[in-house]
Amino acid sequence: MYHLKLVGIGTGNHKHLTLKAIDALNSVDAILIPTKGAGKDDLAGLRHEICTQILTTQPKIADFALPIRDESTRDYGQKVNDWHDAIADIWLNTMQATLPQGGTVGFLVWGDPSLYDSTLRIADRLTKTTEVTVEVIPGITSIQTLTAGHAIPLNEINGPVTITTGRQIRDNGFPAGSDTAVVMLDGACSFQHLDPTGIHIYWTAYAGMENEIRRSGPLAEVQADIIDTRAAARAAHGWCMDIYLLRRTAE
Amino acid sequence: MYHLKLVGIGTGNHKHLTLKAIDALNSVDAILIPTKGAGKDDLAGLRHEICTQILTTQPKIADFALPIRDESTRDYGQKVNDWHDAIADIWLNTMQATLPQGGTVGFLVWGDPSLYDSTLRIADRLTKTTEVTVEVIPGITSIQTLTAGHAIPLNEINGPVTITTGRQIRDNGFPAGSDTAVVMLDGACSFQHLDPTGIHIYWTAYAGMENEIRRSGPLAEVQADIIDTRAAARAAHGWCMDIYLLRRTAE
Repeated sequence: MYHLKLVGIGTGNHKHLTLKAIDALNSVDAILIPTKGAGKDDLAGLRHEICTQILTTQPKIADFALPIRDESTRDYGQKVNDWHDAIADIWLNTMQATLPQGGTVGFLVWGDPSLYDSTLRIADRLTKTTEVTVEVIPGITSIQTLTAGHAIPLNEINGPVTITTGRQIRDNGFPAGSDTAVVMLDGACSFQHLDPTGIHIYWTAYAGMENEIRRSGPLAEVQADIIDTRAAARAAHGWCMDIYLLRRTAE
Repeated sequence: MYHLKLVGIGTGNHKHLTLKAIDALNSVDAILIPTKGAGKDDLAGLRHEICTQILTTQPKIADFALPIRDESTRDYGQKVNDWHDAIADIWLNTMQATLPQGGTVGFLVWGDPSLYDSTLRIADRLTKTTEVTVEVIPGITSIQTLTAGHAIPLNEINGPVTITTGRQIRDNGFPAGSDTAVVMLDGACSFQHLDPTGIHIYWTAYAGMENEIRRSGPLAEVQADIIDTRAAARAAHGWCMDIYLLRRTAE
């Protein structure tokens, strides 16, 4: 009844979209856009802006309000699972209200649908219970925006790279076996929990957006500036998404 | 004298290019395209095709022959360094011949310039010795094409992911600390060196191209098929680029 196109839109700029993503969004009957929720209303606004800039067809645009995560649930996995269940219900209700006869529905996914994003997990819930099929169109991730902005390779020659989260860095330290770690979903400058000796950091906030901020240098020298810069940016904008790469250096 | 735009073009299809990448390639005075060398002539052809499809301006197109790696150099790092030095010399010669007065030069980089690609390292050699500046425009990587094709998330919830090489897998086994490993630059089905128990594989060859091939399943069950499929594809096309994701599963 419904075919979902989960479209990676890159980070904050319609120029990040691929031709394939633009074709996909122009091919759907409706586009669902999440609003409110986590205090990131800018993102709903950005999704609407992107639609205005790239749509040459007239899909229906349906906003839906994201549910609030139940913070009283102690277990992190359970909390996230319950939240995804609730979002899947809202997706289905919104699709049925917007396209009662079924059809093709587009979702604009920040970055790429594969990377620390719940869209695929929510879609999987629907494919298991209803007649829903899913297609993924890749997008530029904030990792590539980070490395492009600093003009650095992600990996060292033949070297492994670990992509991880602030929580992992805080609880488990620098990832074993890699000299390069990319840290996402942090929000708390978790690099503070590491011994900075011999670590270089490349940090970007608002990757790909007009107000992108970049800092880099030996972690010991620049971490205080990054913490201050992040706090000031967060105070000014109400939110701050950042990402950073940590590299063990020879010196 | 020269401003280099290293433009990620995604994997094998001009529809993978972002609007930003298309703008960048239309803004340059010349585009340099590597030919011959590693037996991957299809890729030079593809780069020319992409230029035909997306250029609305008339930059000069300059082909240059990649040097051969000196396989008599024992040390792997030294061999790669020497090769990058040689390529940097050829870039500079080709730029000087094509744009004697200087200008802006574009390079079409397979996937994204940050990921297991030498373009940035070669460009860095030039910025150190001549008046060259570098800008990076991100592109869709084969990792995102892999996960999109299989419609799977890259990471598990809050879980780390290690991006690594066939050589690393063969020498060091499944990366410590991650339940997900993405393996690139393999060419030898190095998953054979792992105990397949409890590992699920998602494998893609020719990611993003018309002849993309995908296989997935428990490693123990599907690895023989993948080895055979890869060998047959390589025999048919003369080359095979593949990538895969290994995930430790609960079962």
